[in-house]
Amino acid sequence: MILSHGAEPIDGVFRALSDPTRRRVLERLSRGPATVSDLAAPFDMALPSFVQHLKILESCGLVRSSKVGRVRTYQLAAARLQLAEDWLAQQRTLWERRLDQLDHYLMALKEKNT
Amino acid sequence: MILSHGAEPIDGVFRALSDPTRRRVLERLSRGPATVSDLAAPFDMALPSFVQHLKILESCGLVRSSKVGRVRTYQLAAARLQLAEDWLAQQRTLWERRLDQLDHYLMALKEKNT
Repeated sequence: MILSHGAEPIDGVFRALSDPTRRRVLERLSRGPATVSDLAAPFDMALPSFVQHLKILESCGLVRSSKVGRVRTYQLAAARLQLAEDWLAQQRTLWERRLDQLDHYLMALKEKNT
Repeated sequence: MILSHGAEPIDGVFRALSDPTRRRVLERLSRGPATVSDLAAPFDMALPSFVQHLKILESCGLVRSSKVGRVRTYQLAAARLQLAEDWLAQQRTLWERRLDQLDHYLMALKEKNT
């Protein structure tokens, strides 16, 4: 029986990744740290809405920020992205193993019938 | 300027992955196809709520289903999981390249100062 254990950190990571604006921000931060105004510049969006996206990214641990004077700079926190990638890679491994087993089964069946 | 181009298929994939029940279902399907009752068995959840999760997984293309008689069987559609994994891998590649560049820069700086 699988009981609900409440929210897992990976829930918030995948939810954060489900928005194209937030993915564009992460793509930008993969290339290096950036200030809020650098990050906001390419988007046709009111600043408060944009800042909300940054807060979502920070609250799930995908980015970190620090403030020097009046300038807040964001950087990628790669470990959280890794959490999501690892889960996906694990499913692929299981899936590919299953396809291999199916292949072997079909080969054996073919040999038996020839 | 980045304009909103409406929902992308990967949006729905990441949103579907943000729920632990749906991830458990995908983990099960990575091992092979299963019927609705097989899939539902480990969960302490009303069937209509559980079926709703299956519908979300199917609508974003992460699973496919087929019905024989009264029994509906689900299987993983691995290509959609690959879409998410590819995006994450791409960010990691960019990030690691940046760390390498930073390493080279620091090494060069160190050499210059010795």
